[in-house]
Amino acid sequence: VIPAIDETHNSELRSWVDSANTPTTDFPVQNLALGLFRVMNGRARPGVAIGDQILDLTAVVDLKLLDGAEARLVEACASDGALNPLLAAGPEQMRSLRSALSLLLRDDSAQGRTAREHTATLLVPTVDAELLVPVRIGDYSDFYTSIHHASNVGRMFRPDNALLPNYKWVPIGYHGRASSIIPSGEGVHRPSGQTRDDSRALPVFGPSRRLDYELEVGVIIGRGNALGAPIPIASADTHIAGLCLVNDWSARDIQTWEYQPLGPFLAKSFATTISPWLVTLDALAPFRVPLATRGPDDPAPLAYLDDASDRSHGGFAIELSVWLTSAPMREAKRAPFLVSTGRYESSVYWTPAQLVAHHTSNGCNLRPGDLLATGTVSGPTPESRGCLLERTWRGSEPLTLPTGETRRFLEDGDEVSMRGRCERPGFRPIGFGECRGIVSG
Amino acid sequence: VIPAIDETHNSELRSWVDSANTPTTDFPVQNLALGLFRVMNGRARPGVAIGDQILDLTAVVDLKLLDGAEARLVEACASDGALNPLLAAGPEQMRSLRSALSLLLRDDSAQGRTAREHTATLLVPTVDAELLVPVRIGDYSDFYTSIHHASNVGRMFRPDNALLPNYKWVPIGYHGRASSIIPSGEGVHRPSGQTRDDSRALPVFGPSRRLDYELEVGVIIGRGNALGAPIPIASADTHIAGLCLVNDWSARDIQTWEYQPLGPFLAKSFATTISPWLVTLDALAPFRVPLATRGPDDPAPLAYLDDASDRSHGGFAIELSVWLTSAPMREAKRAPFLVSTGRYESSVYWTPAQLVAHHTSNGCNLRPGDLLATGTVSGPTPESRGCLLERTWRGSEPLTLPTGETRRFLEDGDEVSMRGRCERPGFRPIGFGECRGIVSG
Repeated sequence: VIPAIDETHNSELRSWVDSANTPTTDFPVQNLALGLFRVMNGRARPGVAIGDQILDLTAVVDLKLLDGAEARLVEACASDGALNPLLAAGPEQMRSLRSALSLLLRDDSAQGRTAREHTATLLVPTVDAELLVPVRIGDYSDFYTSIHHASNVGRMFRPDNALLPNYKWVPIGYHGRASSIIPSGEGVHRPSGQTRDDSRALPVFGPSRRLDYELEVGVIIGRGNALGAPIPIASADTHIAGLCLVNDWSARDIQTWEYQPLGPFLAKSFATTISPWLVTLDALAPFRVPLATRGPDDPAPLAYLDDASDRSHGGFAIELSVWLTSAPMREAKRAPFLVSTGRYESSVYWTPAQLVAHHTSNGCNLRPGDLLATGTVSGPTPESRGCLLERTWRGSEPLTLPTGETRRFLEDGDEVSMRGRCERPGFRPIGFGECRGIVSG
Repeated sequence: VIPAIDETHNSELRSWVDSANTPTTDFPVQNLALGLFRVMNGRARPGVAIGDQILDLTAVVDLKLLDGAEARLVEACASDGALNPLLAAGPEQMRSLRSALSLLLRDDSAQGRTAREHTATLLVPTVDAELLVPVRIGDYSDFYTSIHHASNVGRMFRPDNALLPNYKWVPIGYHGRASSIIPSGEGVHRPSGQTRDDSRALPVFGPSRRLDYELEVGVIIGRGNALGAPIPIASADTHIAGLCLVNDWSARDIQTWEYQPLGPFLAKSFATTISPWLVTLDALAPFRVPLATRGPDDPAPLAYLDDASDRSHGGFAIELSVWLTSAPMREAKRAPFLVSTGRYESSVYWTPAQLVAHHTSNGCNLRPGDLLATGTVSGPTPESRGCLLERTWRGSEPLTLPTGETRRFLEDGDEVSMRGRCERPGFRPIGFGECRGIVSG
């Protein structure tokens, strides 16, 4: 059940918001990404990204430019302070809202002409707004879907046995921490923790010296499922509201000492940054592709993870990139340094639908707004490795920044920014906006 | 900052609720455990366990038998449908409410005499009520604090290396699943999942054949902390609202195949049962003891985990027991079978205060209502092992039930009930009520 391509994806559409018609924007009228913002510490309001502006959905409803079920859902989100009521309403409602928003923001519709007359009431410049975490995340689950990441990490720590025997059968995942998920732009404190330099030393407690980022794609759950009622893979897409970017900040030295036998814990739970815009599954319909990671000799997925539509369209064509700006670079007004660039569909081994089917296969209930993340998205080349641990190969191949500084791991003052962009001939490119954070000591 | 023993703990106190004065009740007037209940699918209401009755706190406020800040907190909990507003208010407010409730339920106070006149309005028989999960749990973290459990499991899976080198330094824990935490009495579906019998077989998907329980103690967080602001161990107790019992149901065959390298995931996330009553830290004041698990040759805890008061009073004297009733036993009206009995303070290596200090040491924020669990509480003897994996030593030493049935792991229809009780000469014993669930196929 892959969302269909329809008139809202027509590449000819233009918006009456001029900045949405530039070739480089992440947010043309074909995207209609949903978010939550506030101005001057006011109430959280639902909005739509359009060029460099936000369409204020509460203002849209106040002006009666939306009505019926769509207006009630906007009001419910405003009152809830999160997009969860819309997610819970399900894919048909999300598609109805998308159609209405498309008409409202096009420059060739009656609705668009009316809206344009209320520009000052309806639009908020994105630079003037505080962008919030768009959904209330009940549970956050982090997976390990990039086979190149799993192989690289495996090679570093288990040279004889890089990829564990379960990897090509089980979408490996673990529970993450929901309370410390923060919006793009919020600062990240360098965590303290226990570390041990080598097996002869005594452990010590202090600030992490191996702070890292992890480039990930987030899957935001729409309609949930009841406890005890697994979601079949054939309908898994109808439970996915959309995607975002995730930076799963990681303290490698804390992780090394703590993670046996129950997995990562404090090495991750100090902060996870998510990008502010929910790019809906509908917006992504033109960019559905098969994954390119399963080899001819790989085992077929077990039946509960296998579906014809998922095999042909389960992935997403997304170019992902990571940029770093050190404090000296910022002072010298240098451009951000491109650390890595890679592609989602040639990195991950399991599709979002497979993650949903697997996660619920034991009866576990997902709730609207839950976050499933891919784990570090690393591709097959050194330039496409999605964390410094891999990019600098445990620090043995440091990066040199334009200022001459070197980086093995993150330093205080470093800003990490992640971007994601979907392009396909015949369609208008769309993007995810920025997932950004600065490390402080 | 250990809560003080005061007049509310006086063993001479009696309640006007007769069943609270029996020697065997878990809920004498010295306990005053807090919960959430509803009758006939009505609204969730905050209540206090007293003997075999529930004191309906909303009715108490309606009758103006509580006022001021305590009444407002009760109303906030009723409106929120959870005890979180009370927890967030902090330990002083919780202690004020306890003092007021003690006076209201004593048989020798003016308040008690007035309350007694309204017995029919104020009391609901516990058997007529549905007991709910008392708090809204944002995040659930599960630890591995029982050194006997860690050693037993280590011996089974890593004979040369039973206790990993980090165990006596790091309170090992991992994130659990919050969405599938269910109240005592709710049925548990046997999960399906991927399992592999041995390293030559292909994995298969189907119902777990090694379903287990795990006896744990839960720590419910009161006042939270801000992201980036660790809680020092000396004040950790002021962030703990109280304790409850937890059954962390586990599918051992799913766990074995999935858990490398990121820890348990679907083997646990299908259900976690918690007991319905929050036994407050104040109620537990008379039962504070040092832990008995740290040997003279063990390393001293690192400074952030070390505190004089925690060393002398960081533990709790709790006798824990697990009871099993099979479907044939239920049909034959047999009494539950006592599977194990042990003591918290001679099983766990890390105190609740140490768990709080460790969990927040990296800046991670805890929120009111968050659940931290101990992990399986196993003692030094076979009779005190808190899960079937250990109790039957991976199924090699099956239990024989009174009907002649044997158990390696749980069968459909099995009911598991856990109890906890605190006793100390000179004080009235208190208990936790039941943590109970029946497995269905």
